[in-house]
Amino acid sequence: MKSRTFGSISGVIPGRTLYASRRALSDAGIHKPLQAGISGSAEDGADSIVASGGYEDDEDLGDVIIYTGEGGRDPTTGKQTHDQELKGRNLALARNSITGRPVRVVRRADAGYRYDGLFNVERYWVKRGKSGHLVYQYRLVKTQLAPSDLAGENQTQETGLPPGTSHPEFRSSLVSRIVRDSEVGMRVKELYGFRCQVCGTRLETAAGPYAESAHIKPLGRPHNGPDVPENTLCLCPNHHVLFDGKAFSINEDLSLAGTEGRLFVHPRHIIEKTWLHYHRSQFLGIRECGQ
Amino acid sequence: MKSRTFGSISGVIPGRTLYASRRALSDAGIHKPLQAGISGSAEDGADSIVASGGYEDDEDLGDVIIYTGEGGRDPTTGKQTHDQELKGRNLALARNSITGRPVRVVRRADAGYRYDGLFNVERYWVKRGKSGHLVYQYRLVKTQLAPSDLAGENQTQETGLPPGTSHPEFRSSLVSRIVRDSEVGMRVKELYGFRCQVCGTRLETAAGPYAESAHIKPLGRPHNGPDVPENTLCLCPNHHVLFDGKAFSINEDLSLAGTEGRLFVHPRHIIEKTWLHYHRSQFLGIRECGQ
Repeated sequence: MKSRTFGSISGVIPGRTLYASRRALSDAGIHKPLQAGISGSAEDGADSIVASGGYEDDEDLGDVIIYTGEGGRDPTTGKQTHDQELKGRNLALARNSITGRPVRVVRRADAGYRYDGLFNVERYWVKRGKSGHLVYQYRLVKTQLAPSDLAGENQTQETGLPPGTSHPEFRSSLVSRIVRDSEVGMRVKELYGFRCQVCGTRLETAAGPYAESAHIKPLGRPHNGPDVPENTLCLCPNHHVLFDGKAFSINEDLSLAGTEGRLFVHPRHIIEKTWLHYHRSQFLGIRECGQ
Repeated sequence: MKSRTFGSISGVIPGRTLYASRRALSDAGIHKPLQAGISGSAEDGADSIVASGGYEDDEDLGDVIIYTGEGGRDPTTGKQTHDQELKGRNLALARNSITGRPVRVVRRADAGYRYDGLFNVERYWVKRGKSGHLVYQYRLVKTQLAPSDLAGENQTQETGLPPGTSHPEFRSSLVSRIVRDSEVGMRVKELYGFRCQVCGTRLETAAGPYAESAHIKPLGRPHNGPDVPENTLCLCPNHHVLFDGKAFSINEDLSLAGTEGRLFVHPRHIIEKTWLHYHRSQFLGIRECGQ
């Protein structure tokens, strides 16, 4: 059985209480460790973090936090003197981006600590921080879900599974798994007849074939890749997860890195090498430093 | 080259203009056919519909429309006298639920027709209508996207692909493909070690394994399935798409319907047969009547 509690803590309302010390936070079950900024394990993911603003690359925009992983700092000066690594608690927080589990976020307040609610770990990446050393960063976005959806203290049945609810709130994320693409994505998928450029799979549903468009250099901060055909692939959902999840990348000659095979490219589809290089640098940064 | 225009029509603002006739609507490029309620093809999907409220099972809730497919009605009385079929324009509208393309929605107004903007076809299903005959229904939800995301009249390059944009608006649907699950879904996935119950695949990302939880009887209207372990499967994204897309179903003895194989079920996971039966009835209704 899992002893880590994910999600809301029963009776604890975000923003309401000031906790005088890390000990008080820990006793309240909000953030158990007394020193570490991240609570969690690589297997289960992270259940809570303290955003203390201690890292020079952190940013706090209210409902969005750019959080920097731990490690690589000189304990005396607090300066970043080594590369961070994607393991231990850094890997735990990355895991949430894959499982979709939210983390409780605690912020430093004037005279202590304040619990500010649940945030999703939308994605993570590696970059050279202001110090010149590699740091891992996480984009945390405040969750829009009702607390009842995310209560951590589900009773469990004899089977070890939580009982769940017969009346789930209507949430589109729980209902639909179709990924909506831009018109560029649609056209790229049509060019490939909805066949995956990695494995050739074409998923045939009752309403016709399905594939997903994947961006090589991701859209959105901090990557800011463009939504253009030269940055777009047609992938089956499984290869989309693996590509975004840095399980594999694509070499300049279109052979795959991290797995066997080769990307199929249509004669009318030009793929921009700069963006392949960008994906590869994330892939290598995450794989080599991390594992 | 595609002649059908998906998305917004340049210069046409939703809600603003009253069109006196179907001919006027057609000339404006909003809804081309003069009689049919659905404009589209099975291959590309639907580009527009007229929600005239002609079917007894229709519902119009403003930003959500339950739209009934066409066919099976007596042309004189307008009564439903036969089962509808999932082909032709009915299949076209179902296709949008898979491609994610929105449809333009036109409503009857007092003295004519009004264009009310873009709606996503969130899902479709088959049911016995008030008449006792099978009808296809579609849940249309008004899109929240900026019109620029959905402009249909993209110029195309020599490659036949649209040029796209270097500054895509930040939309989470274009950025992240991770499907968030409830805590019940998480626990079911953990029970299976993130292996697909159909094919045994476990996707290994840099931040650990990924799988999705799938509901046998879907959550949300009109199905209203429960979010409980007995209604939840652990699937790889590809099999999730195929299961939700009615490409296959599961027989009472756990053999698969519509494909080879057998569902693997963990000894501590009890699957409720009633919900398998529900999925099978949708699967059979859609496959047998449709194709």
